This record gives sequence, C-alpha cells and structure tokens, in this order.
Amino acid sequence: MSVFLQFIALLSIILVSAKLAGYLSRSIGQPSVLGELLVGLLLGPSLLDIFHLGFIQDSHTVYELVKEIAELGVLFLMFLAGLELHLKDLARNTKVSAYAGILGVLLPVLLGWLTGILFGIESSHALFFGLILGATSVSISAQTLIELNVLRSRVGLGLLGSAVFDDILVILLLSIFLAVLTGGGSAFAVLWVVVKMLLYMGIFAAIGLWVLPAISRWTSKRPISQGLITLAIVVALIYGLAAELIGGMAAITGTFLAGLMFSRTPEKKEIERGIQTIAYSFFVPLFFVSIGLTINIRELESEALFFIAIVSIVAILSKLLGAGLGAKLANFSWKESLQLGIGMVSRGEVGLIVAKIGVDNGFINTDVFSGVVGMVLITTLVTPPLLRSAFAEKKEKKNSLDNQTGTD
Amino acid sequence: MSVFLQFIALLSIILVSAKLAGYLSRSIGQPSVLGELLVGLLLGPSLLDIFHLGFIQDSHTVYELVKEIAELGVLFLMFLAGLELHLKDLARNTKVSAYAGILGVLLPVLLGWLTGILFGIESSHALFFGLILGATSVSISAQTLIELNVLRSRVGLGLLGSAVFDDILVILLLSIFLAVLTGGGSAFAVLWVVVKMLLYMGIFAAIGLWVLPAISRWTSKRPISQGLITLAIVVALIYGLAAELIGGMAAITGTFLAGLMFSRTPEKKEIERGIQTIAYSFFVPLFFVSIGLTINIRELESEALFFIAIVSIVAILSKLLGAGLGAKLANFSWKESLQLGIGMVSRGEVGLIVAKIGVDNGFINTDVFSGVVGMVLITTLVTPPLLRSAFAEKKEKKNSLDNQTGTD
Repeated sequence: MSVFLQFIALLSIILVSAKLAGYLSRSIGQPSVLGELLVGLLLGPSLLDIFHLGFIQDSHTVYELVKEIAELGVLFLMFLAGLELHLKDLARNTKVSAYAGILGVLLPVLLGWLTGILFGIESSHALFFGLILGATSVSISAQTLIELNVLRSRVGLGLLGSAVFDDILVILLLSIFLAVLTGGGSAFAVLWVVVKMLLYMGIFAAIGLWVLPAISRWTSKRPISQGLITLAIVVALIYGLAAELIGGMAAITGTFLAGLMFSRTPEKKEIERGIQTIAYSFFVPLFFVSIGLTINIRELESEALFFIAIVSIVAILSKLLGAGLGAKLANFSWKESLQLGIGMVSRGEVGLIVAKIGVDNGFINTDVFSGVVGMVLITTLVTPPLLRSAFAEKKEKKNSLDNQTGTD
Repeated sequence: MSVFLQFIALLSIILVSAKLAGYLSRSIGQPSVLGELLVGLLLGPSLLDIFHLGFIQDSHTVYELVKEIAELGVLFLMFLAGLELHLKDLARNTKVSAYAGILGVLLPVLLGWLTGILFGIESSHALFFGLILGATSVSISAQTLIELNVLRSRVGLGLLGSAVFDDILVILLLSIFLAVLTGGGSAFAVLWVVVKMLLYMGIFAAIGLWVLPAISRWTSKRPISQGLITLAIVVALIYGLAAELIGGMAAITGTFLAGLMFSRTPEKKEIERGIQTIAYSFFVPLFFVSIGLTINIRELESEALFFIAIVSIVAILSKLLGAGLGAKLANFSWKESLQLGIGMVSRGEVGLIVAKIGVDNGFINTDVFSGVVGMVLITTLVTPPLLRSAFAEKKEKKNSLDNQTGTD
C-alpha cells in the first residue's frame, strides 16, 4: 500500500471515530471535544496503536502528515475563536477581563511552580510547568458557554475577555521565559521581546484595520471560486507565520488576531461559514485526536497517576481561586465570581501547545506531558457539570428552546 | 524555522498564486485551471523553485506534505464530478456516450502508440503512452461547458456521458495493462482483473444504493458539527481506498462513484456546498499547482519541445476525430459531432495521474512526463476558444445573462 493509501485509511478511521465519540460525548451532556480527546487515547499506543497497524508500512511519514495537518486545525480553531469574538463586548468588560485574566494566570503559575518543585523538578523548569497550568482554553470555554446559552451574559462576556487576556498573558510569559533562557536573560533581551511583540501587534492590527477590509471586499466581488475562503485561510496563515517570525510569539496568537480582524468586515458571516466547514469537518477533529495519539496510558506508572491527580487538583483550585478573586475585585457578586472562576477551569489546546513546546525544548519530560494531558481531560470533564450547576438557577428562567441552539 | 512554519509559508504562496492566476485566466476567457497549472510551472524549478527558497531547510518533508494534500484534492475533485452528474441524464444518452467514449479513447490510444514507437519508445511502453492520450478530463470539460452555459444541451450531456465512459474505459485499460505486465499476461489474469472490478463496482454500488442514504439521513439529523461533510469525506476516502484494494482500480474511480451515490440523496445540496468549499478553497488549487511544480522547463531541450508539439497535435486530432466520429455514428449532426469532438479535446487530471503511474513504474521517463504536461496545457488552452467558436451560433440566441453564471 502506498503512503497515500495508508494516509487516507488512517484519516478515515480518525475522522469517523472523532465524530462518533464527539456525538456520544454530547449525548451525555459533555462537550464533543472530550470525546475526541478520549478517542485519541484509544486509537493511540494505549490501546489500538493505529500508526502501527498491519497495513501501515510507513508509520513515520503517515504520522508526520497527520501531525502537520492537525496543527493546521489549531490555527483554524484560533482563527474562528477570534472571528466569533465581538470587540465591542470585550471593550465593555476590560476591568473584569484584566483582573480575572491576570490573577487567573498568576495563581496557577505560582502554585504550579511550587508543585513542580515538590515533585523534584528543577526550579526554572518548574516555572515553565506552572506556565502550562496558566493557560485557559478559549475554545473549550466558549463551547461550554454556548451550550449553556450564557455567552452574551455579564459572566459570559467577562469570561471570554478573561480568557483572551489569559491567552495573551501566557504567551507573553512564554516568550519572556524563552528569551530569558536563550537570550541570556539580560534586561535588554526582555525589553527586546516586548518590543518585538508590540511591533508585530502594531503592524498587523494596522493592516487588519486599514488594508484587509479592502482586500476582502475586492475578493468577494470577483468570480474566484471560494476566493474569500482562500483569502481567510491565507491571511490566517500569514498572521500566524508573522507572529512567530516577527513577534516571537506563538502562531496561534497570530491566527487569533487575524480572526479578530475579519470579524469587523461585512464578509464575516461567509468566512465564518466556510472556515467552520473546513475546520470542523476535517482539521479540528484531527487535532484533538492527535493529542491522545501521542500518549501511552499503559506506560504510566502509579506514580504518574498520583502526579496527574495532584496536578489536576492544583489546576482546578488555582484557576478557580485566581480568576474568581479577580472577578470579585472587579465588583462581580460572589455567585458571579464563582461562575466565572469555574468557567476558566477547563484547559485545552493552548496549554497543550505550551506543553509541546516544553517537551521539544527539554523543559519537561514525556511523563510530565502525559500528566498535562490527563489534567486537560479532567478539567474538561469537570467544567461542564460544574458550570451547569453554577448556572442552574439562571437556566430555569430561560426558554428551553434556547438551550438547544449552538454549535460545537 | 520549523517544518510547520515552512509548510504554511509555502501553502500561503501557492494558494495566493493559484487563485490570482485562476482569476487572471478567467479574465481572458480561459478556465481557471489553466492559470493554476501555469503558475505551478512558474513556482516550480523552472523559475522560482519555491521548495528550495532560502528559508526552506526541510524541502523534502515539506514537498511530501504538499504532494499528499494535493492528492486529496484530486479525490475531492472526482467526488464533486460524480456528485454533480445526473444519472438520469446519462442514461438518456447511453448510445452517444458509448460510441463517442469508446472511439474517443481507441483512436488516441492507437495513434499515441504509433507516435511513441516513432519516437523510439519500446512497444509496450508506447502503448501505455497511448493510454495517457486517451484520458479526457471530466472536470475541465464540465467547467468549460458550464462557462459556455451548454451543460444541459444534447451535446453537453452527450459530452459528459462520453467523458464518464472515457474515464472508465481508460481506467479499465490501465488496470488490464498493469495486470498483464505484472500478472504474467495469462487469460486468467485478465479475467481476474475484470472480476475484481465488477466485484468492487457491485458491492459499492449496492452499499451506495441501499445503505448510504440511511447513514446520510441519520447523520444529517444528529447534532454533530459538520457531521454530514465529514461523512462525505470519509465515504469518498473509503470508496477510493476500496477501489484500489478490492477493485484494483485507481482511487479516483472510487471517489467518483461515491459522489455519484451521494447525488441521489436529499442531502446532496448541503454536501455539495461543503465539499466545494473545502475542495476549491484549499485542496484543488494545491493539486493543479503541484503538477507544474514537478516540471523543469529549463531542462527541456529543443527535441523535447518538438515532442510536445507532435504529441499535442496527435492528442487534439485523434480525440476530435475519434469522439466526433462516435457522435456521428450515434446520429448526431455533423455540427454537433464537431462540437462534441472539440469538447473532448481537453486533457487533465486523469491523464496526468495515469502518466504519474507510468513514471512511478518506469513505463515512461520524465521527459515524456513533461511532454504530457505540455500537451495537457496546450489542449486546455485550445479547447475553450475552439468550443466558443463551435457554439457561437447557439450562444447568440441565448440570454446574455445566462453566460455570466457558473462556478469554476
């Protein structure tokens, strides 16, 4: 069998499993992403080991193909997260976003650092581990919010804003961390990191504000088959690329910014429909499944399971307390602060991507990486039921029809 | 720069170039595929050599990624070709489809064989070369027809039917050829090839007729994000895979059949919209560009240019005469026969894929492959203006607004 045939055979298996698992997950009231992560674990070396089935002769090449395509999925996901945000709503919630976002990062980073040191990890690497715990997932939070139908509420918008703040802060800290370790750690190096980020943000926000709308309008009026969708894909890719090359940031920050920029154009709806089709039918399920594929549960020893349990508890409590306290400081009620804190608990792709960077650079080992994935699964698992009970009162007042809407 | 960043940088370049070239091509009255093939030549080793730009350190890996994704584009293209056909229309035109399809393959194969022998190619390999000339492109023909707004005319439907017949016949001959060369050439081996093909066709047509509609309906009613589109993708991939593994045919025949099967379901429209978005915004432009990427014009010597010229003349005349004669035998008027014959002239992905199989198996060398690509470009270039003049009278009678519709 040629590489291509092995590749499409695996694509078929992964896509069908992901969609069925996502459907089952939703049937029992969980977000579909949970099912997709779990099915990745089942398909991976833990159980079925699909990259080493009998008919796979070129497992390395095929794995590489699936991995790179899955990474495109992350970019599309963050592009959609940006596209679906409303800048005006965010501006109205700056205070709570800043407070909950900042405290919701600092407390997990601090407690994660201490936890790492307690587990015998060297101090600077333990700090990196703390950083991983800081990253909330915009997409998983938003998904849960949509399913609960409270995305446009005070808490919902505050949560979205905090998650954005959270992402940017984590990526800022990540960039500084990398620069300090690789650039010698001088004050100048840190300054340079910040200058590069501001430079990137300035240039690409300006392009997005003044150039992109014209290109977008021009393209939408030309007889180019799916021209607008190709434009959105290319702009997302270029923003992502430039975020890495110019800004020294993660590519996801760039595609997120690209989505934010397109959200202001009249072509937003058409782009959203097209990219949703491409992302959710093909690329995104591959990404969620691919995470499970990198983990071998059978190799986890009881020590590792203990580690996952502790990390999960630290992750849940630190985020809940940090973000909740931030919300309270921004004059939210205790109940609202609790709701927002819970909403920030679920971790996802950003944490996983930061963890991946850590493995690639030798800051964390594969055991710690498995611990992070376990933590992501557990925080994702507990967030929807916790949010549901925290919003229980509110939901009863709403029309039951409303609760049926929303995408995943 | 990581492999992923190199990969998305090249994706951006290829997608933007393809769409702009397609747009320019349409602006001067040519199908967009022509521009996409030409831009591939420019981006390839002939001029810019994008896989060896300064920032590309892992050109082999990145090339492999683009190549495999481009191959997915071919599968989607053939799926759409099947999806957009109307079986009832085809059944009404069986006679002309059979006559024009069969003669439209036999004459090019025969003349191609002779041409190959004249150029000193060994007899069995020259026959394979003839086979390449036999393959008309469904997609390029259909595209040209839509742009001329005569897809539903007597000639248009006859042309579509002939192209289907043509494809199936070429793939049948290809399978027999491969089996004869590899299977020892006994009568039993040939019989086995035919049995496998019929077996595959029987099983997967039955599944398509009796199982697929139920799965399609079930999926469309579940809250699975883009579930129907994922289903279409997976079914296309499985049909393609099975065509190779069970039927011994090319994967494109399988995805074409899968499209044909979905064309009967009530979910057809939604699937068509989704797969068109995915295919034309991302995968298909990559395919057309990737063909040009494999060719180095600068290495072609004057002998090779002479070869391209002769092959193109043989390809045009043999197809025009063969298909035209077939149409005349099926009681078309001389004018209609000429129109149909011209419509069959343009070659495309099937010919290129057969040629690729030939290179991979050592039946043709890279010079001959370049000759085939040159022939595809030239036949694509001459078909639209020739068709335009052949249909000139008819078009004048039509509403000028009609001529503006159509996708590419």
